[in-house]
Amino acid sequence: MFYRHTLPNGVTVLAELDAEAHSVAVGYFVRCGRRDEPEELAGVSHFLEHMAFKGDERYSAEDVNRVFDEIGAKYNAYTSHEQTVYYAAVLPEHLPIAVDLLSTLTRPILRDEEFELEKQVILEEIGMHDDQPGSVAYDALNEAHFAGHPLAGSILGSNESVGGLTIEAMRDYHATRYVGSNLILAVCGNADWDAVLKLAEEHASRAPSGETDRPLPEPAPRPTARAIHKPENAQETVMLAGNAPSNASPLRHAAELLSVIVGDDTGSRLFWELVDPGRCEACELSYTDFAGAGIYLTYLSCDPDRAAENVAAVREVFDAVNARGITAEELEQAKNKVASRIVLRSERPMGRLGSLGGNWQDRGEYKTVEDDLADLRRLTVHDLRDLLTKYPLEIVTTVGVGPLDTLEA
Amino acid sequence: MFYRHTLPNGVTVLAELDAEAHSVAVGYFVRCGRRDEPEELAGVSHFLEHMAFKGDERYSAEDVNRVFDEIGAKYNAYTSHEQTVYYAAVLPEHLPIAVDLLSTLTRPILRDEEFELEKQVILEEIGMHDDQPGSVAYDALNEAHFAGHPLAGSILGSNESVGGLTIEAMRDYHATRYVGSNLILAVCGNADWDAVLKLAEEHASRAPSGETDRPLPEPAPRPTARAIHKPENAQETVMLAGNAPSNASPLRHAAELLSVIVGDDTGSRLFWELVDPGRCEACELSYTDFAGAGIYLTYLSCDPDRAAENVAAVREVFDAVNARGITAEELEQAKNKVASRIVLRSERPMGRLGSLGGNWQDRGEYKTVEDDLADLRRLTVHDLRDLLTKYPLEIVTTVGVGPLDTLEA
Repeated sequence: MFYRHTLPNGVTVLAELDAEAHSVAVGYFVRCGRRDEPEELAGVSHFLEHMAFKGDERYSAEDVNRVFDEIGAKYNAYTSHEQTVYYAAVLPEHLPIAVDLLSTLTRPILRDEEFELEKQVILEEIGMHDDQPGSVAYDALNEAHFAGHPLAGSILGSNESVGGLTIEAMRDYHATRYVGSNLILAVCGNADWDAVLKLAEEHASRAPSGETDRPLPEPAPRPTARAIHKPENAQETVMLAGNAPSNASPLRHAAELLSVIVGDDTGSRLFWELVDPGRCEACELSYTDFAGAGIYLTYLSCDPDRAAENVAAVREVFDAVNARGITAEELEQAKNKVASRIVLRSERPMGRLGSLGGNWQDRGEYKTVEDDLADLRRLTVHDLRDLLTKYPLEIVTTVGVGPLDTLEA
Repeated sequence: MFYRHTLPNGVTVLAELDAEAHSVAVGYFVRCGRRDEPEELAGVSHFLEHMAFKGDERYSAEDVNRVFDEIGAKYNAYTSHEQTVYYAAVLPEHLPIAVDLLSTLTRPILRDEEFELEKQVILEEIGMHDDQPGSVAYDALNEAHFAGHPLAGSILGSNESVGGLTIEAMRDYHATRYVGSNLILAVCGNADWDAVLKLAEEHASRAPSGETDRPLPEPAPRPTARAIHKPENAQETVMLAGNAPSNASPLRHAAELLSVIVGDDTGSRLFWELVDPGRCEACELSYTDFAGAGIYLTYLSCDPDRAAENVAAVREVFDAVNARGITAEELEQAKNKVASRIVLRSERPMGRLGSLGGNWQDRGEYKTVEDDLADLRRLTVHDLRDLLTKYPLEIVTTVGVGPLDTLEA
């Protein structure tokens, strides 16, 4: 059963309840991510997520961890370009404590000393991130593909932006982003709606009311190729990006399926063409949708001597798909894969939570597992052809990280 | 609903079915592991698990992966000291193919060329294993603690035993271990019992009938301390073992709870005494039960200069628990943690499968989630005291891997 309520301060409360479930999952979905940050505060959303676990007036950092632990919660948080999410899965009797603690996380006290200590932790995280070719390539790809667009930046921020961040700037940023209309409190699993409402009123209504803008300019990527020279690497890591439907597009289900057919990590066109014969170590295509934008992202890892021919082979696979579409058999197999993933992910309240919060945040909609499966089952070869007409597979942006010091566009 | 049947060839078919589940998980539990191997064949059970995925008369290695993939299966296998398990989670309509494929895995054709290629893969795996201090310490601990006992050996085997293994010896070993009475076919989730039985008759009845012995001598560890000198490591990895109840002991639930109270990786006695104050990087106690044996295993990672004082601190924690037991509050918190873990793990058919197969293999018993929770809830401070009287926490075996070249017993 689906329930929904808006608190006077603007917080949306959502629930998908099931008295047969053995657990309950609860989370805050905050419309606050890298794309909302001015450049001088780059990384502040992610840094704030770290600071959230340092407690408030009532709870110390140690208390937060201890109490989550005492109730046996499975809990965590993450920050993306578009959101920050705090969540926990607990036994039904511990929902009140979980809501209390998670609400605490959205109102951290931001103590000076902890801010400085955590800054060092984040700077180390940036250092480790920069050691990984995949992370470097991903950041560089976004930077090139979304040049001048809010989706361009690295979620962690840079040594300069994080190093220069002040606690006052973080407080101001928090005050503008962690406001009622940017917050969704979502609950999945075994709980009573009246009890959820009461908990929401007690804890979530303490968030300040307010609204904040999020501009959604259209990205206008221009063909770019960039090589980041790391002679010490054995392999060349290549990432390719092309335009794809946004999260509001009705074509997004077809795009998801197309990415599985063309670039799933097993049994896809790219897999049989490049990975299975050993031409490269990995070659995968994925689809990511954002508000107002979307990309097909191809990840390739191979011997640097074979990078150019492999990119050409990817382009040939793309051209063949654009010209002749996909087969009914490929469509059917991809539907099986995606249906399995939807179902296996949905069996636990924790697995439903992301879908519940995400669908609402992205499109203000609620979808059951059955809705998702029906959306999937109804796609035809013609839908895929429509998609390919509007969003052909193409390589707009190319980034390489490794021994090569130049790449062809 | 629980169902059970024995096929004429001795294969046990078990099912815990639930028409409300969205998926079905199925697996073979084979009573075949490192403890069953003669020393000259050390590692053969694990090697066989690898060879299983190379197919039979009908399916090539590529077919096995392709077909699992086409039905969107989530599948894998693992080998331990006591069993080899092959499993998959699929949508209910794909159960017949999943049972067919998993049955294929239990009767691999063992082609010469693939055997030699896979031998190289295993030797590389042994090499990587030997690069990891935790793995080296774990193997050395078992070797010392179970000296002369079937549980002493490393699951992967050694370069010598694997390098010297012949395909004929593997065939003979397979013929003696993969026989009816050593096989359990278990199914959890959304399926029909009659359909399960029919699939079992079609596929699992092809296993040869037969029985094999598994001796269960009692281990008799004598206090030992061994340092494996790795001057290039920064940290000292220390592992400690003491006696604990076997998998047939009624004390095993209490032992599980005691391990959480004393040595869980958050909020336990060892955590607050050693990890939280920064005396070591990690210090955890876990309980592992085997047929006819059990151990408490403490894992410690720290600055080599502090290893001796940290081991002494662990001993003090153990002594305090042995002398004064644990508090009602500690018991209650640990019950919450363990109950959460049981419930969160049980929500998917895939999560129930291990419990269904394992309980039957270990004790010929079936337990529902509710049974497990009731067993947990009924434990008292007195039960823990009884356990500590029979199995006090003690350090019998000590192994260190790292810069130290000597360790005190």
